[in-house]
Amino acid sequence: MKFWASIILTAALAGPAMAQDKPAEPPSPQDILDRSVPASWRTIAADDLVVMTLADGGQVIYQLAPDFAPVHVANIRQLVRSGYFDGAVILRVQDNYVVQWGRPDEDPTKPVGIDEHPPAEYDWPLKTLKFKPMPWRDAYARKAGHVASWPVATDGKSAWLVHCYGLIGVARDVAPDTGSSTQLYTVMGHAPRHLDRNLAVVGRIVAGMEYLTARPRGSEALGFYKTGPEQMKIVSARMAADLTAPEQPHWQILDSDTPTFDAWLKARANRSGAFFVKAAGALDVCNALPPVRTHP
Amino acid sequence: MKFWASIILTAALAGPAMAQDKPAEPPSPQDILDRSVPASWRTIAADDLVVMTLADGGQVIYQLAPDFAPVHVANIRQLVRSGYFDGAVILRVQDNYVVQWGRPDEDPTKPVGIDEHPPAEYDWPLKTLKFKPMPWRDAYARKAGHVASWPVATDGKSAWLVHCYGLIGVARDVAPDTGSSTQLYTVMGHAPRHLDRNLAVVGRIVAGMEYLTARPRGSEALGFYKTGPEQMKIVSARMAADLTAPEQPHWQILDSDTPTFDAWLKARANRSGAFFVKAAGALDVCNALPPVRTHP
Repeated sequence: MKFWASIILTAALAGPAMAQDKPAEPPSPQDILDRSVPASWRTIAADDLVVMTLADGGQVIYQLAPDFAPVHVANIRQLVRSGYFDGAVILRVQDNYVVQWGRPDEDPTKPVGIDEHPPAEYDWPLKTLKFKPMPWRDAYARKAGHVASWPVATDGKSAWLVHCYGLIGVARDVAPDTGSSTQLYTVMGHAPRHLDRNLAVVGRIVAGMEYLTARPRGSEALGFYKTGPEQMKIVSARMAADLTAPEQPHWQILDSDTPTFDAWLKARANRSGAFFVKAAGALDVCNALPPVRTHP
Repeated sequence: MKFWASIILTAALAGPAMAQDKPAEPPSPQDILDRSVPASWRTIAADDLVVMTLADGGQVIYQLAPDFAPVHVANIRQLVRSGYFDGAVILRVQDNYVVQWGRPDEDPTKPVGIDEHPPAEYDWPLKTLKFKPMPWRDAYARKAGHVASWPVATDGKSAWLVHCYGLIGVARDVAPDTGSSTQLYTVMGHAPRHLDRNLAVVGRIVAGMEYLTARPRGSEALGFYKTGPEQMKIVSARMAADLTAPEQPHWQILDSDTPTFDAWLKARANRSGAFFVKAAGALDVCNALPPVRTHP
């Protein structure tokens, strides 16, 4: 009976207390999702979803962020559609930091039809975004919150996507290089917020994160794999929009502009139930990533 | 040339710029460690180090925090010394959350000589601790900082160890159970700060974290493994103090009460060099975990 997490699960499944002689428990985050109406969920467009299949059978699905990094994202779509990532590899897994994939530097394959030098799509004027702040402090920015279900931070003038767990960025050379999207990385550890505003954040992992994070860490410096069998092959990357109907994944994300999301945030910040002694009363933006679900 | 991290490494190895016609780069965090004097490092006592060996050969070394959880830590030492963890297993790996180990609930092995019901060693009066605040905001607490190289947060009255990546806590049943230390977990993902003040934090991983985090995620709910071969065996857990001299590991941790640590924090908050466009100007407590090294 020491599986504290089993207890949490049981409590979540049991739902709020119904006995008349004690006040009802506030709903858990999961209760709120279970009772949500369809309108609280945003359907992710098939042209914003990439399906990446690994040689070990793992399937990783990620969502693109064209509103935040339009040129980098246009490059990714073009790289995917031109087959650039078919036969690319997992280059690097560094514990508590990032997983990086693409083609090794020495690979002669040339990308075709992309913008080799995108602008620095690192931040945007706050006033151009429909930013919804969270009521809590942020360790790095004046405010943190959401824009269309993406985690965003702001200094009051500009705003940027946050390097949270599962967010995807574009690897690059030293500044002023901005990266052309031929190598991508995802965050797998405590949010490396010092990367915010220094690299283009272009998306987030929607499913299959564990096929990247549960890999052996690379044996070279910074978690790079040795060239050769250590590098897991990417069999293919496809835009969901280009798949046949039966192959197409359908995903939704909780809409950050809904009362359901507000209730979910509040419940996440104030955990209650038999397990908890004290509620945190706050929530970090990287602990407030809107949940996703397959299309019901 | 798109290995941005390789560039960071190169910049770090090259050290600060020496050319007379431009200002010297401020030192990088690694430069500061490289130039540190021995007195900036705290030697971790052998009676505070546990060496855990897994059936796949992985060796995980963790440091205990007796000043923060004396009864829970006394239990761990007793459990280790009585062989309780020899033959225990990795019970659970949940992506972006925790790795949990110990004996499965159905295991009949009884712990011997421990306090089955420790006090709730979750927080302490601030005034009893030599707390050194960081100058930046914290998303969850009034202040965050360090006590003797441990990450600590405070509301101004009480203070507690923070659930950062690699910190270790004691699994427990629903409140008011406090856990007897027979099952432990470590954080492997973005800091689940809602657990702060709800569980006893008893230590941190010093080495071998990847032997826990790179494991396949458990196939059951919440990342639990099915009973049987899915559960990696723990061959042995030993107090470093009980090992023979040649077997004994020797670790040091950067002392948070030194100017070297202050300089390291500042450099971490203000990354510079050819790679960076903008410095964050801040640091989250879980991105400010004092580095460790083997004893020189």
